[in-house]
Amino acid sequence: MDPLSPVRSPHFELLERSSAGPARVGRLHTPHGSLDTPGFLPVGTYAAVRGLTPDELVAAGVQGILANTYHLHLRPGEEVIARLGGLHRFMGWAGPILTDSGGFQLYSLDHLCRRSEEGVRFKSPIDGSDHFLSPERCIEVQEALGADLIVTLDEFEPIPLEPGSADPSRVRALLERTLRWAERGQASLRRSDQLLFGIIQGGGFEALRAESAERTRALGFRAFAIGGLGLGESPERRATLLEATLAPLVVEAPRYLMGLGAPRDLVDAVARGVDLFDCVLPTRHGRHGSVFTHTGSLNLRNACFREDPKPLDPGCDCGVCARYSRAYLRHLIVSNEMLGPRLLSLHNLAFYMRLLEQMREAIAEDRFEAWCADWRRVYVEEDPDGDRSGGSSAATHTAA
Amino acid sequence: MDPLSPVRSPHFELLERSSAGPARVGRLHTPHGSLDTPGFLPVGTYAAVRGLTPDELVAAGVQGILANTYHLHLRPGEEVIARLGGLHRFMGWAGPILTDSGGFQLYSLDHLCRRSEEGVRFKSPIDGSDHFLSPERCIEVQEALGADLIVTLDEFEPIPLEPGSADPSRVRALLERTLRWAERGQASLRRSDQLLFGIIQGGGFEALRAESAERTRALGFRAFAIGGLGLGESPERRATLLEATLAPLVVEAPRYLMGLGAPRDLVDAVARGVDLFDCVLPTRHGRHGSVFTHTGSLNLRNACFREDPKPLDPGCDCGVCARYSRAYLRHLIVSNEMLGPRLLSLHNLAFYMRLLEQMREAIAEDRFEAWCADWRRVYVEEDPDGDRSGGSSAATHTAA
Repeated sequence: MDPLSPVRSPHFELLERSSAGPARVGRLHTPHGSLDTPGFLPVGTYAAVRGLTPDELVAAGVQGILANTYHLHLRPGEEVIARLGGLHRFMGWAGPILTDSGGFQLYSLDHLCRRSEEGVRFKSPIDGSDHFLSPERCIEVQEALGADLIVTLDEFEPIPLEPGSADPSRVRALLERTLRWAERGQASLRRSDQLLFGIIQGGGFEALRAESAERTRALGFRAFAIGGLGLGESPERRATLLEATLAPLVVEAPRYLMGLGAPRDLVDAVARGVDLFDCVLPTRHGRHGSVFTHTGSLNLRNACFREDPKPLDPGCDCGVCARYSRAYLRHLIVSNEMLGPRLLSLHNLAFYMRLLEQMREAIAEDRFEAWCADWRRVYVEEDPDGDRSGGSSAATHTAA
Repeated sequence: MDPLSPVRSPHFELLERSSAGPARVGRLHTPHGSLDTPGFLPVGTYAAVRGLTPDELVAAGVQGILANTYHLHLRPGEEVIARLGGLHRFMGWAGPILTDSGGFQLYSLDHLCRRSEEGVRFKSPIDGSDHFLSPERCIEVQEALGADLIVTLDEFEPIPLEPGSADPSRVRALLERTLRWAERGQASLRRSDQLLFGIIQGGGFEALRAESAERTRALGFRAFAIGGLGLGESPERRATLLEATLAPLVVEAPRYLMGLGAPRDLVDAVARGVDLFDCVLPTRHGRHGSVFTHTGSLNLRNACFREDPKPLDPGCDCGVCARYSRAYLRHLIVSNEMLGPRLLSLHNLAFYMRLLEQMREAIAEDRFEAWCADWRRVYVEEDPDGDRSGGSSAATHTAA
């Protein structure tokens, strides 16, 4: 904490609601400034949004970022960051930061993990050292890092979300443990300047989703993270599950959909009342040569861009589109020149920030339904390189 | 060429000479602005200085850059760049550009090459396609790229430079062919807005060095590139060979030492009358975690920097030192986060630019001898990781 700024509890302010649906505009106030919602947090796994400086993020319209607790715990360690003044000072980012719980990363190294009611024992893939993450340790690590928005430890498994495809008793077991862990995490809180999000589980069962939301709320949480979506489910299925998840929540609490997603996913979820997103898509796609434009995504590796003098998106006002041609940016990508990933990431983030800003404006002016219809008509995902398209995928959950 | 700027022949202006030795200060005027000499050109192999934008280069004090003809010929091809308005417009760099001849790169893929008096036939390592580089084609490619400073094709081999270690007849054969190729290249020139450098060879033989310089000058060249140094020779040996090379040249012509070097190499060569340098060292070392400071180089991977809150070089006024700690930059490097290589490259370039500026000031004020003595006392190369130190090495010749 900057000793000159007063310690204020982060809080959410609901500003406008759509008259035609659950979409809403708000502001999440934190000790490091506020986030306009619906808002999107780029992922800075190792205390840096891959290849980009804080100044560039601000210029692209970024208001807040996500950093990965799991990765920073392992390297350089939260105690090192704390001794250097906390995460904001360490990385030179003055705005809001959200740290995740590490629960998702612990799932993805399952073979090195032993999970129990107490917590998760695991070995560092970096040096083989032993680590233990409990709900209490998870809070302790995030308090040491000093993010503004923090998340309780959940137990995550990628359980299929289509009806009849999963065992309800397994989903209930995860839900119950996640609730017990949420309560333990909450009880261990020592700082009052961080907003703690409880995680809602419930897999593909509407009733369990609703129960998880109600019981998380009953624990006294004032902010909610939505887990276990973005696993390849259809847009319709996700909408149904989001609805079941969000219905029991008070309208004044912020709702954060973890790990999603493609532009279309964001538009769909905002329409259902989601306030906050994080995702590696804009930066990861940028690194791989895939760029977002107002008409859909392009794979810059395609030969058709070899001599294309146009900017990435003729309608874009970002610094990359102002200066560089598709031909040059394509050349950088195919030459493995690291300026390419950097510039494409920056353009993609500017695209995401503008998309969120447009949605906020449309909701505030109560014309969101019409805006969505227009946007969906113009935005056609057409990256011919399938697995690099803007489509949803469980893979978008992983660290940057 | 920008159609609004008049076509002017590049030319060198000698401004000041040290009274105590051959060190001198000058200015190389080009259609894209001027280079203060002694000057250093960062290497932008693929039409980008690894990871950095033109704006950042300018902010670090960079006045001109080198791009590799060989690499750009193979990808994206000089005709693509020409159709997109030439190299300056393609990469968004408004200042002077030097393109090399490709001769050095052709040596380094010897197994794919067939050399003859006519030129060099080779296969692209990218797609196996057939290519032919003759002295005339080399000029044609560089005219298409549109650099301000261009270089004739030479025949290069890394021949040891210590007395008695090489076969003089082989060195003479390379020298003679390089002279014939220089004459052919010169005869094929069509543009008048590019300054053509002839390459001086002669290996480790003072007499052959002097002969190569005299005969290149006799061909009418007004600018001279010095080849075949930086092959692991001692500083004393290099000084002797530089002296033999430079003595026959008119004082009004610019002298460019290709592919060198470490800070100490630059100081030594400026003291012998060299005007221009290019080298991958500042950017390559930066990418690998090695940084230059006014007291010597540091390997940031060392554990001693893990919690070091100091800037890279407390005396440095670059944007990286203003914003980030050694601890954070080390964290980025050990985490393989690409912001690290970018920021360290930028700092190292700022260090090089300041070093050259200090030398220019000292020469202009006729106190260069004293400046050198002070600098050598303070600057101690001490990177404990031997092969990443600031020391000279033939490897510094290769593309970025």
